[in-house]
Amino acid sequence: MIVNGVDVTALSQTLDAIRQDPKLGAFQFRASNTWLGGGLNRSTIDRFYGAGQEQTRPKPFSFSADEPPVLLGGDSGANPVEFVLHALAACLTTTMAYHAAARGIEIRSISSALEGDLDLRGFLGLSDDVRKGYHHVRVKLRVQSDAPAEQLEALAKFSSVYDIVSNSLPVEVTVEIHR
Amino acid sequence: MIVNGVDVTALSQTLDAIRQDPKLGAFQFRASNTWLGGGLNRSTIDRFYGAGQEQTRPKPFSFSADEPPVLLGGDSGANPVEFVLHALAACLTTTMAYHAAARGIEIRSISSALEGDLDLRGFLGLSDDVRKGYHHVRVKLRVQSDAPAEQLEALAKFSSVYDIVSNSLPVEVTVEIHR
Repeated sequence: MIVNGVDVTALSQTLDAIRQDPKLGAFQFRASNTWLGGGLNRSTIDRFYGAGQEQTRPKPFSFSADEPPVLLGGDSGANPVEFVLHALAACLTTTMAYHAAARGIEIRSISSALEGDLDLRGFLGLSDDVRKGYHHVRVKLRVQSDAPAEQLEALAKFSSVYDIVSNSLPVEVTVEIHR
Repeated sequence: MIVNGVDVTALSQTLDAIRQDPKLGAFQFRASNTWLGGGLNRSTIDRFYGAGQEQTRPKPFSFSADEPPVLLGGDSGANPVEFVLHALAACLTTTMAYHAAARGIEIRSISSALEGDLDLRGFLGLSDDVRKGYHHVRVKLRVQSDAPAEQLEALAKFSSVYDIVSNSLPVEVTVEIHR
């Protein structure tokens, strides 16, 4: 049975398997990165461990990161803090879709817009009172579904990346429903 | 003057400008994301605000996120928590290169390997005692430089993404020097 593009039969089997053997829930994700000079570098993401075994992929993923000219880079890739917003958007979206599917809640569309505020004085070491990373992040999710916004917001917050970021700084999540 | 591929004259001018007018340090980065079904979604990263004005780019960046088959996806992109490792690797690397350049420390190469440990029981809601995101991250940086490992490690830790992640969970950073 497929809900929201998620195989809920397989999801239910995964839940049962991890309930019976919690060790199957242990995952390790990995990345390697090479500096290419200045603000430019490239990561490779390939194998990981999970569900009790090494997991391989047909081919590795590769992502460049760079800085825009105003931050003295060549702008040949998004910058590291922009990738954090991508990770957060992607995780909230997938998490809402998966957890809704597990509960039989249909979702027709999800889109989101994110803003992350950062004061460069922290990164540059110009002030000890200013943090180096984002001090606030806002996420606006627009969802087409018959479920209430509060329920979908609570489901999205099972997100792993939301857990990482929101335990470090205020992340304001709002869900706007379109019927 | 260029050190580590970084224009240190421009970097010094940036530092002076923000010292004189701290408002120039206020940056806002942005992302938008669209769900494509199941574990697949795509982010667009384009304009941002910084150095006192809206900043545009020649063209937007676009990144897919997906899940591997064992997490019920089609594996057509790295997954959200893998993008967190990319962001962290990229940011530690760029930060070390920039901060070393500002101090006249030459770096000949940087490569890194990252591991992030996650227990899926948190994400799946099977245990309230298990966090949903990574519980530990390890970063090993190999650097070719004449500077001591401790100094380069301290410089890398000005990283914005290191600030975000390490204020949420233990991030173990080790720097290994090769002369």
